[in-house]
Amino acid sequence: MLVVKKFGGTSVGNKDRIFNVARRCIEDYKKGNQVVVVLSAMGDTTDDLLAKAEEINPKAPKREVDMLLACGEQTSVALMAMAMAKLGVPAVSLNAFQVAMHTTSAYGNARFKRIDTDRIMSELELNKIVIVTGFQGVNKYDDITTLGRGGSDTTAVALAAALHADACEIYTDVDGVYTCDPRIVPEARKLKEISYDEMLEMATLGAKVLHNRSVELAKKYNVPLVVRSSLTDAEGTLVKEEAKVEGMLISGVAVDKDVARIALIGLKNEPGIAFKVFDCLAKHNINVDVILQSIGRDNTKDISFTVALTDVDEALDVLKKEQNHLTFQKIEEETDVAKLSVVGAGMQTNAGVAAGMFEALYNVGVNIRMISTSEIRITVLIDKNDVDVATRAVHDKFIGD
Amino acid sequence: MLVVKKFGGTSVGNKDRIFNVARRCIEDYKKGNQVVVVLSAMGDTTDDLLAKAEEINPKAPKREVDMLLACGEQTSVALMAMAMAKLGVPAVSLNAFQVAMHTTSAYGNARFKRIDTDRIMSELELNKIVIVTGFQGVNKYDDITTLGRGGSDTTAVALAAALHADACEIYTDVDGVYTCDPRIVPEARKLKEISYDEMLEMATLGAKVLHNRSVELAKKYNVPLVVRSSLTDAEGTLVKEEAKVEGMLISGVAVDKDVARIALIGLKNEPGIAFKVFDCLAKHNINVDVILQSIGRDNTKDISFTVALTDVDEALDVLKKEQNHLTFQKIEEETDVAKLSVVGAGMQTNAGVAAGMFEALYNVGVNIRMISTSEIRITVLIDKNDVDVATRAVHDKFIGD
Repeated sequence: MLVVKKFGGTSVGNKDRIFNVARRCIEDYKKGNQVVVVLSAMGDTTDDLLAKAEEINPKAPKREVDMLLACGEQTSVALMAMAMAKLGVPAVSLNAFQVAMHTTSAYGNARFKRIDTDRIMSELELNKIVIVTGFQGVNKYDDITTLGRGGSDTTAVALAAALHADACEIYTDVDGVYTCDPRIVPEARKLKEISYDEMLEMATLGAKVLHNRSVELAKKYNVPLVVRSSLTDAEGTLVKEEAKVEGMLISGVAVDKDVARIALIGLKNEPGIAFKVFDCLAKHNINVDVILQSIGRDNTKDISFTVALTDVDEALDVLKKEQNHLTFQKIEEETDVAKLSVVGAGMQTNAGVAAGMFEALYNVGVNIRMISTSEIRITVLIDKNDVDVATRAVHDKFIGD
Repeated sequence: MLVVKKFGGTSVGNKDRIFNVARRCIEDYKKGNQVVVVLSAMGDTTDDLLAKAEEINPKAPKREVDMLLACGEQTSVALMAMAMAKLGVPAVSLNAFQVAMHTTSAYGNARFKRIDTDRIMSELELNKIVIVTGFQGVNKYDDITTLGRGGSDTTAVALAAALHADACEIYTDVDGVYTCDPRIVPEARKLKEISYDEMLEMATLGAKVLHNRSVELAKKYNVPLVVRSSLTDAEGTLVKEEAKVEGMLISGVAVDKDVARIALIGLKNEPGIAFKVFDCLAKHNINVDVILQSIGRDNTKDISFTVALTDVDEALDVLKKEQNHLTFQKIEEETDVAKLSVVGAGMQTNAGVAAGMFEALYNVGVNIRMISTSEIRITVLIDKNDVDVATRAVHDKFIGD
């Protein structure tokens, strides 16, 4: 069996944890499995490196930021190989150049195009554990790219797909996917299974367990994922195509505080304006989420949407530069907002989930500022201050304890 | 003009120093020169990374140590590119993969085989300053190698040769090559010029200003080197084929405390024994220096030699494993020794330098344990405790103040 195991930064944060991970991998290896390990940068390394870059140049070229950040994972994989050698097992660390993990060119936000498997396979055939840097790739210029936060999950899934792995295990500091963040809702339950689509909604909406791109990729290549803890032996959560419904209308409540709302006011009411706005943002790799368009005064229209907090300054810059072209009269931003969502395949066949959610929020006096829905999700934008009380109310309504 | 400028770890040790280096490079660039910058890892980074490796596995595989260490220079070059961008100058950082700096396979001690210049030249043609990681290369397995301590100097010289650069400037924390270490001999003088051969003897013998391999390479490709300070504008020392003699019999006194003596006692007195001993060490990439062979008791012979302190454990291991094959009866090591040398092209035409050196040592009561000479050098092995007094005596004898 070929297994890809991914460990996050917390799981390799110090010597003891590195050896703990090494032992878990060796356990699998000694059962006769071929083991590929994907690692993130240790602990706060990525943040420390970003702080160094910020100190030198707050507007550092993204190419150089990626060059810098790549050192984080390279450090992890080299140390892990040393730990495994210490435990008597042959291991080899590989970075993005060595595997040849080809990505698009977008620094800081690249996507995999093609992964060569020759080097990994030949190392596996030499009976080695192969340890690969997560989060990074190489573009057509031979430059280092990074995949954005959480990119190591994506690396693991992409490798599992390319290698036709039998399993892809994502080890993290929580022991599975919960119905809600247990820090906000202590009664949150661990799910045994969840479907790709539900997980995707949860991931996109800020449940930090899995990165959305990794789930998209897993769905695309039908790679079954297991999310479990690197610190305990507790059974994790299986993410796959069709998950068993466990008698619940919804699978989870997701919260995302890393969000800002931007409003463009007084746009010309003519075809193509919305396209121009979002095309302009897309060209700068700014992801837009909940979008709301409404009729303004004097035959104009207003468009509001949410972006990640980290993108808000760039989004404002980009839009202001194009003000004439985009025809808006005014631009406003709010950063004291949060998104709250309920997710569940069950709501496709059950009316009344939206009404139930709005009722729960009304009962605790929380004002809804924007609404957006998909087949298996209902999202509301609320004040950041209301998040905890709103989350508990909604979780209590649908999942309870 | 194409200039290669190399800055050591101290020169890029913090934000201010990084900007200082950036400004010096930009000065050259603004004069219309093409500038290639080679950097070492910042400050104590390499030692910190080695300490991390040591913590995980004191006998870490060398391949993985190199994988780890390479992060040091990659961090430096990325931050430098950010600093130059901040100062408004386009710059690009390149690691060993990106340049394609091909080396032999010997991890921790690799040598350049071939350097591709395409990527660097095309970046220079785009009017960028090109910043290259020193100290590292890539071998035929696509694995990262390092060149050993001081390897960044070698990178700079090898690049200067490959690019047919007009100048190669080695910036360091001293302002040139001195007749002796000024910390030991305060009256030491700065040399205006020194020949490759003299510098080579000085470098090999422990004057830490330039790494010996870099001088060998410079000599081989006739690359004139300038050694100067990154912190002042003082004129440095020019290293070239024929240096002007400045009325001195010797150019310098070099001290090396990083040395141990190993003695093999009671070897069979038959042909090929010495070959076997040093071949065995060479196969493990252990460099041997001063060698002394003498007749022992009962028709046996004894061989003593010096190795770097860091190699002594490995050398002992390697030799003990081969004890029967190498035929020695006993092995001894001493680590409380040091090498003291006088170097100078002048001694080729002046007899009496050796006698003068021995007299100076006799006058201060220093015992000589081994002697070794070349055309332009006389080296003695003495007790580590005697180093300072011996150095001052010899410097005073030949150079004075």
